[in-house]
Amino acid sequence: MISKADIKRVRALGSKKQREHSGLFVVEGEKLVAEALRSGFEVEAVYYTDDIGEEAMGRISLLSSPSPALAVVRMPAPPSSSEIDALIASRPLCLALDSVRDPGNLGTIVRIADWFGIDAVFASRDTVELYNPKTVQATMGAVFRRKVIYCDLPRVAERFASESMPVYGTFLDGRDIYSETLSPEGLIVMGSESNGIGEDMAQKVTSRLYIPPYPRDSAGSESLNVAIATAVTCALFRK
Amino acid sequence: MISKADIKRVRALGSKKQREHSGLFVVEGEKLVAEALRSGFEVEAVYYTDDIGEEAMGRISLLSSPSPALAVVRMPAPPSSSEIDALIASRPLCLALDSVRDPGNLGTIVRIADWFGIDAVFASRDTVELYNPKTVQATMGAVFRRKVIYCDLPRVAERFASESMPVYGTFLDGRDIYSETLSPEGLIVMGSESNGIGEDMAQKVTSRLYIPPYPRDSAGSESLNVAIATAVTCALFRK
Repeated sequence: MISKADIKRVRALGSKKQREHSGLFVVEGEKLVAEALRSGFEVEAVYYTDDIGEEAMGRISLLSSPSPALAVVRMPAPPSSSEIDALIASRPLCLALDSVRDPGNLGTIVRIADWFGIDAVFASRDTVELYNPKTVQATMGAVFRRKVIYCDLPRVAERFASESMPVYGTFLDGRDIYSETLSPEGLIVMGSESNGIGEDMAQKVTSRLYIPPYPRDSAGSESLNVAIATAVTCALFRK
Repeated sequence: MISKADIKRVRALGSKKQREHSGLFVVEGEKLVAEALRSGFEVEAVYYTDDIGEEAMGRISLLSSPSPALAVVRMPAPPSSSEIDALIASRPLCLALDSVRDPGNLGTIVRIADWFGIDAVFASRDTVELYNPKTVQATMGAVFRRKVIYCDLPRVAERFASESMPVYGTFLDGRDIYSETLSPEGLIVMGSESNGIGEDMAQKVTSRLYIPPYPRDSAGSESLNVAIATAVTCALFRK
């Protein structure tokens, strides 16, 4: 059973404003709910179709086809500046997302970061919200394992550079990524879907890379999707 | 101006049945429409918001937010068996998709195939339809440059093997893809989102590969999305 008030409370979490106000977000699907429960995140409520019935699940679900389980989860506190200092001092390999706008792309990138052992994902403040239901679902659970840190991205890039770590970015006039020696530490900047890396961040990049098409001189597609480019880049860094 | 009959005709192409019956599909967006016009594909009609008005465009568009241009395009005839013979005789590098179900994944894979110079994409007959609007849009124009051939996939794999070309597939117990010598010709089999490569196709694979996570022994994410895995695989083949 679920009360009318609870139905209203869960449904409200479809809105970004309400998520920010309450500090709560929704995950759906048996696998994701199980991961939430194991994750160390604070789980406020769990609903199963078996308990509340299909109609009620249809009403609280934020997906077009509801799944048999849904959890309401509390967002973790953002890392403190001393935690960020400690992260950078550990000489990590991190991603920096400059204005990524598509929820599915962000979720897929967090999943990629998880697979390839990327220590954290920094995101510009205009990057799409991590707790958007589409983003959360696209992470396939990686949202519980990888930190996404919204911040002043150029400042973070400066921090990496001041610790003598490289700041990578992909550009059409960059050097062939297959021929470069790629460092196990540093920051990899990925640009937005429509505009690539913005001018402010481009100035912070110390190593310009390029994922060439095949054959090298082919016209054809003019770009790769940002999540695809992230995957190829991370795979080559972790080779 | 656009007639009521034309509005009805275009909208009907949102249905797979109607696309198959008419042999027509829809592309939207100025860039994609321009590519359609240059592509050599037969373009039956083009509509611009400037000509027909926003309201009419809203009615014919199959997207949630209509763009300023829409074209109705005729599907090319599927390749004949002698064309497929000639393709295989040219010792190409091709993809084989075994039951890929998500329209966005298929479109993204065609875009990846275009970028990495994959000669053709073979698809099992239960793979999602290429001319689904979501798929077409996700190809970003690659639908006009790369062939997707629906076929009996195990038979195609046999053809590659009988010409002494390798048939690759990724499996959890495969060999580390980073350490393998990858052939510039052959077939790369990618499995479905939920079940991976099916038993029938798994039997045809002559070289089992694995994209390892980082660090190699990490738990974490249990899989990569099929489009992401395709991108990483193609990038390593084209290194």
